[in-house]
Amino acid sequence: MKNQTYRMTMLFDFYGELLTERQKELFDFYYNDDLSLAEIAENEGISRQGVRDVIVRAEAAMQEIEDKTGLIRRFEQMRSHLDAIESAASEIKTINFRRYDDPRLTELSDIIAAETAALKD
Amino acid sequence: MKNQTYRMTMLFDFYGELLTERQKELFDFYYNDDLSLAEIAENEGISRQGVRDVIVRAEAAMQEIEDKTGLIRRFEQMRSHLDAIESAASEIKTINFRRYDDPRLTELSDIIAAETAALKD
Repeated sequence: MKNQTYRMTMLFDFYGELLTERQKELFDFYYNDDLSLAEIAENEGISRQGVRDVIVRAEAAMQEIEDKTGLIRRFEQMRSHLDAIESAASEIKTINFRRYDDPRLTELSDIIAAETAALKD
Repeated sequence: MKNQTYRMTMLFDFYGELLTERQKELFDFYYNDDLSLAEIAENEGISRQGVRDVIVRAEAAMQEIEDKTGLIRRFEQMRSHLDAIESAASEIKTINFRRYDDPRLTELSDIIAAETAALKD
């Protein structure tokens, strides 16, 4: 079951606060603390199937919101623009290093690289 | 009532698809088509107060989602990074124009400006 951890982490990051407290808690144990269904069941004193049902419902609820809003999809499309900015800044730095050695151009290309990295974070 | 059109348009852009069909429709008439409550009431054959109630509930529902997820807030924080990138690219272009006249540096700073504009759109 734990086969789409990246996808689930994205869903939880975007929409986790829209889940019930119970869904949030069990989802967090499973995907973020990486406990097994059996471990969560034992800690919580409920059945493994009970844990599974809560998590599956949480996933479905968040996926339904994403299917409607497309916000994660839009966010991921932004990354291709950021990649293009990053690659242009890196080429500016290289050209400057080889031809001009202008300290302000180095600074500016570093600023762009740092701001791009912050946006991708 | 129609005093926060930008804010409402953002909420609708992010979370509009999570509303009911009826909420979506009346909200759209009011904020995007800029009809008055009275005009919508007449077109739909319901009371002005009825229209108002649906729209107020839609606003509250979307604001509640934003209060929980903070996705619009996060999106707006990204803009300050994009402003920094835009301003660095513009300074690179100016330095190049004054000192080096390197056509590839012009191209690269234009690429960064265009990609930043696409991200802000």
